[in-house]
Amino acid sequence: MEKAKFGVVTISDRASKGEYEDISGKYIIEYLEDVVSTPFEIVYKVIPDEQDLIEKTLIYLVDVEKCSLILTTGGTGPAPRDVTPEATENVCDKMMPGFGELMRQVSLKQVPTAILSRQTAGIRKHCLIVNLPGKPQSIKLTLDAIFPAVPYCIELAGGAYIDTYPDKVKTFRPKK
Amino acid sequence: MEKAKFGVVTISDRASKGEYEDISGKYIIEYLEDVVSTPFEIVYKVIPDEQDLIEKTLIYLVDVEKCSLILTTGGTGPAPRDVTPEATENVCDKMMPGFGELMRQVSLKQVPTAILSRQTAGIRKHCLIVNLPGKPQSIKLTLDAIFPAVPYCIELAGGAYIDTYPDKVKTFRPKK
Amino acid sequence: MEKAKFGVVTISDRASKGEYEDISGKYIIEYLEDVVSTPFEIVYKVIPDEQDLIEKTLIYLVDVEKCSLILTTGGTGPAPRDVTPEATENVCDKMMPGFGELMRQVSLKQVPTAILSRQTAGIRKHCLIVNLPGKPQSIKLTLDAIFPAVPYCIELAGGAYIDTYPDKVKTFRPKK
Repeated sequence: MEKAKFGVVTISDRASKGEYEDISGKYIIEYLEDVVSTPFEIVYKVIPDEQDLIEKTLIYLVDVEKCSLILTTGGTGPAPRDVTPEATENVCDKMMPGFGELMRQVSLKQVPTAILSRQTAGIRKHCLIVNLPGKPQSIKLTLDAIFPAVPYCIELAGGAYIDTYPDKVKTFRPKK
Repeated sequence: MEKAKFGVVTISDRASKGEYEDISGKYIIEYLEDVVSTPFEIVYKVIPDEQDLIEKTLIYLVDVEKCSLILTTGGTGPAPRDVTPEATENVCDKMMPGFGELMRQVSLKQVPTAILSRQTAGIRKHCLIVNLPGKPQSIKLTLDAIFPAVPYCIELAGGAYIDTYPDKVKTFRPKK
Repeated sequence: MEKAKFGVVTISDRASKGEYEDISGKYIIEYLEDVVSTPFEIVYKVIPDEQDLIEKTLIYLVDVEKCSLILTTGGTGPAPRDVTPEATENVCDKMMPGFGELMRQVSLKQVPTAILSRQTAGIRKHCLIVNLPGKPQSIKLTLDAIFPAVPYCIELAGGAYIDTYPDKVKTFRPKK
């Protein structure tokens, strides 16, 4: 089976300068290693909150690296430097509003400020791009909510075939 | 009372070539006949997943046929040929995000892949256009959820007056 | 502590002509006086449903009056004259989809026509702009749902520091 490629992109001015360790991006990588049962490799990037650079990075990961899934963390709030959703929308062929809705809904059970997250998702070519929250605890919560739909989404978009360990994440594919 | 006109549009490459029977469009027609108590007639179309043709069909049904409601089925997923939401947005004067949100929310109780549906709704002139899912079972589920708000929405948009059998769908109109 | 400025904008053809009293805008002012514990002053406007005028009013309240929060009421439905969400989107630097989603979700527990509200929210410069429903009862319901996240949102956007009486609204700020 051909290896799938997953992009993990931490978007943070401070992490990209090395002012703190990128625990969020590393957590996403751990999560993928924990739940995905089919072969894959990770392309990992840490970049500042520059919209142009975020767009170029996403385009590179899809068009050159041929990633089937990109998970970003950071830059989805209301602060002036938070531009991840705008960059994502600019590079996507089609948007997937259900991801952002569900991620905010599950986060809202924990904190009322979940509505401040502007996270979105979309498809560029054969790749699903999803914005995740900034903190590992929230990343786990939202990934647990959306991941059952991720393998089928990538399949429909024409990306790699991926599957999960059913005791970790129950991948759902409708019966034909 | 003047007859309302409803457009039912099945958007599917394969159904439009006659490769299979359009059970989804026919189910929508049955549903309307079952719940709408005021006089109406149906304009029914089956077309391929071509964005330009979808837009022309929607425009024709609103501007020429004077439909007050158009229900589409098909073409709302993440596949490259799924362009119904984009076509809908392009022909609408204003978007109604609450429809897509509610439809995904009720579908999510059944399958985690409900978040992959990009279905939306909007107003063109005096007509409400709503994208429905592809399968009869999901169509029923989502129509049951949104239909109580449909007659009042059409009324506010300046379309025909319609009402429903209250034992089938409880139409809601706020007291003035 | 510097006084925060809040804009309250009633958008209604009839209220702006004096055909009825603006109870909605006045209710919003009462609500703010009731829950906000830090010093503030209100800039209050009643204007017709003209998109160009709504946009100019919002821009004035942010750029000249330096409001940190603007709450609008009216003009969010499917009627041809309802253009408040479009005006809001046109003047905002970034949109905050979580506000509209949550407001529709809580309203839906009361009336099925909640999905007809197209209300949205966004950030212009250092100001959070939120569209509220038209009726005082719905305004209270939606403000109670979103207000715990409002002070932190304004803080992240670079606006004034505001706080609330915790027995009225429990402002949430994540621990650093």
